[in-house]
Amino acid sequence: MGKKIGVGLLGLGTVGTGVANIIHNPEGRHPLITEVELVRVAVRDLAKPRGTNIPKKLLTQDPQSVVDDPSVEVVVEVMGGIEPARSLILRAIAAGKSVVTANKAVIAHHGQEIAAAADAAKVYVLIEAAVGGGIPIIEPLKQSLGGNKIKKVSGIVNGTTNYILSRMTEEGVNYVDVLKEAQELGYAEADPAADVEGLDAADKISILSGLAFGGPIDREGVPTQGITNLSSRDIEYANELGYSVKLLAVAEKLHQEFKAASSFPLAVWVQPTLIPEKHPLAGVNGVNNAILIEGDPIGEVMFFGPGAGAGPTASAVVADLLNIAGVKTIGHQADKLDPLLAATSWRNCQLVEPNKIVQKHYLRLQAEDTPGVIGQIGRVFGDHNVSIQSIIQFDSTEAGAEIVVITHEVTQGQFNSSLASIEEMKVIQRLSAHMICI
Amino acid sequence: MGKKIGVGLLGLGTVGTGVANIIHNPEGRHPLITEVELVRVAVRDLAKPRGTNIPKKLLTQDPQSVVDDPSVEVVVEVMGGIEPARSLILRAIAAGKSVVTANKAVIAHHGQEIAAAADAAKVYVLIEAAVGGGIPIIEPLKQSLGGNKIKKVSGIVNGTTNYILSRMTEEGVNYVDVLKEAQELGYAEADPAADVEGLDAADKISILSGLAFGGPIDREGVPTQGITNLSSRDIEYANELGYSVKLLAVAEKLHQEFKAASSFPLAVWVQPTLIPEKHPLAGVNGVNNAILIEGDPIGEVMFFGPGAGAGPTASAVVADLLNIAGVKTIGHQADKLDPLLAATSWRNCQLVEPNKIVQKHYLRLQAEDTPGVIGQIGRVFGDHNVSIQSIIQFDSTEAGAEIVVITHEVTQGQFNSSLASIEEMKVIQRLSAHMICI
Repeated sequence: MGKKIGVGLLGLGTVGTGVANIIHNPEGRHPLITEVELVRVAVRDLAKPRGTNIPKKLLTQDPQSVVDDPSVEVVVEVMGGIEPARSLILRAIAAGKSVVTANKAVIAHHGQEIAAAADAAKVYVLIEAAVGGGIPIIEPLKQSLGGNKIKKVSGIVNGTTNYILSRMTEEGVNYVDVLKEAQELGYAEADPAADVEGLDAADKISILSGLAFGGPIDREGVPTQGITNLSSRDIEYANELGYSVKLLAVAEKLHQEFKAASSFPLAVWVQPTLIPEKHPLAGVNGVNNAILIEGDPIGEVMFFGPGAGAGPTASAVVADLLNIAGVKTIGHQADKLDPLLAATSWRNCQLVEPNKIVQKHYLRLQAEDTPGVIGQIGRVFGDHNVSIQSIIQFDSTEAGAEIVVITHEVTQGQFNSSLASIEEMKVIQRLSAHMICI
Repeated sequence: MGKKIGVGLLGLGTVGTGVANIIHNPEGRHPLITEVELVRVAVRDLAKPRGTNIPKKLLTQDPQSVVDDPSVEVVVEVMGGIEPARSLILRAIAAGKSVVTANKAVIAHHGQEIAAAADAAKVYVLIEAAVGGGIPIIEPLKQSLGGNKIKKVSGIVNGTTNYILSRMTEEGVNYVDVLKEAQELGYAEADPAADVEGLDAADKISILSGLAFGGPIDREGVPTQGITNLSSRDIEYANELGYSVKLLAVAEKLHQEFKAASSFPLAVWVQPTLIPEKHPLAGVNGVNNAILIEGDPIGEVMFFGPGAGAGPTASAVVADLLNIAGVKTIGHQADKLDPLLAATSWRNCQLVEPNKIVQKHYLRLQAEDTPGVIGQIGRVFGDHNVSIQSIIQFDSTEAGAEIVVITHEVTQGQFNSSLASIEEMKVIQRLSAHMICI
């Protein structure tokens, strides 16, 4: 082989350092790694000591100079955040350079702009590290599952919330207490909003949906509910009923009746979810992630592993670098891209109105402990044609009775209208929690 | 794009029919499928009715004529068995045609010969369907995990035995009874030897090992033990001790001390194994397969799904066809192969002697129900420097006592020499079962 492929690295935090360490220690890894060379690295602070022995002369505080450097053929963006990441990625593309990024936010929110630019410039933008940390999920969706009609993607794609929920389950402690400890341990950020509000999961399911179904969706339109309102009591009740509670991100193909002439209708959401104990996603605990794909004819396949962390994420970044190196090896024609690797969209996907999404719902209510209250609740749901799977009265305390309702599958519109009536009932003191159930 | 890629199909059983159905019904799948065309199909019996509407004129009973047909660019071999599959694959390669095969036996036993021929002819031999049915595992090993030093591959890779073990676990029934029912249901073949003796699993771990560690191993040298000697009692005891029982196939990198100058030492085996309940592989039940990969820096990732069946296997075959179509799109230089897709070996791997493999062992013994028998057993192991994790006496019946021993990690050589002494003890009536434990 000829000249090595020059890589410019934007960001030398834990992930960037992990990438540098792999490139500089190729022994025992795929030999193609030796065809890749780190030629320029942008850091925030030149003075900061580094956990990797990158020659000082490669470092700069000016990321633009890395993108512009003629010896840089591929730009690896691991700085995170929307800007300046987005501008730097677009600048690299405009200069005819392929990009590898771990940045889910920028891809979820600006993926279409970036993909269009990459397609025009005939370069690759590879994003294996953006979802599921080290778990190979982007490449299987782009390549290995291409023979399938994908029906549904369900994922536990945020390690922080999964850690919190696992701890709440194991120890019966409340959200606020676990969050505090998770922050002390470095599993949750000082400002945890992106994780605990479900925004990070929504970014990731948007990306997965685009690849699984062949067309981008409107990220801003994804109904998203985080875990901040969950109490350990909901988890306890769910467990008693034979379920685990997970923050689930789902993208699902809808039935024929939704089919508009020119677009492919999808239901996409992020919501705390009751998962039956025997379901493959129910046993995914701690900071692990898992993504379950349902397709025809494959059936169900699941990908499981560490959803974050420097090592796993660096592994995914290097996988993308290897793919670019592999394609270059066979003589890349300047005007052509491998369609499996480029993964341009081939379908118009469209989110259906949230009101039309069909789900089973879990509801915890605080009610007066009077005879007949369960019958009254059942009647109100019946009046709205919401069929009930179970109504169970748990503890009755001085505060009243706790009643858990699980419905059969209904549209959210139908459910919400029944909920309004439930909340008006004078025996109902409080709606304590609302989740979905699979 | 120009002319479609002509595919010749060898075999039109359930998998071949599944492949044809995907190619003939591209709607909703990756658009690259439309670049692939079925031009010739070899069947065993032209007169047999088919579950797919392939034009009669494409069918022939002469597989060689399919391979030789000039309109066939890629040969898909889904006939199974060693011959004539091996000869037909080599013939296709010699004619400069890439091959996609689902045939684990031919790859496990003749992979080196086939790989050498493919490398010389500069064609691809892709084998996603050979291991794990539809689960994307070959491609992730070849591409997505290339940045890692792989330490260990552990797999439940045979659906028939996993189904049998799951039923034995759930219902407490014995091997022979479940096997009979599995045969009636079509989950086990009339001659089940390849599955229940572990040979199929040994084929598959040999293939996975070659890809994970970058060099082929000697398939004939893989120590293999099937499930035919297991009784429901072993499973019951294992469960009581907090373990599941699975037929596990493992390929593991050995520690530095084994390192010969020119080769990379591996321990590879297939054996019924006790797996701790919390381990990700413990919950893999029924005909599902799962493969767990441990690497640096990724940690542990697991791939889970249907390990066999027409649909999943066809999905994997089509994935390989798409990869070949993708590479052709960008202008395949006749003398070059994408090194990630070609996956030629880059290391000399070598099996260590079975005696040097380090494992924890499970042993079930029938002993006289006399005081001090546990002490005597413990002493014999101690004399051989085999350290014990636990010795537990289960039921004592009229037949004597049942004693289960789990050792700490010892070499097989050490363990076997202690076993010889145990069997000589006059209080020991019978060695009832032997498994390993992780």
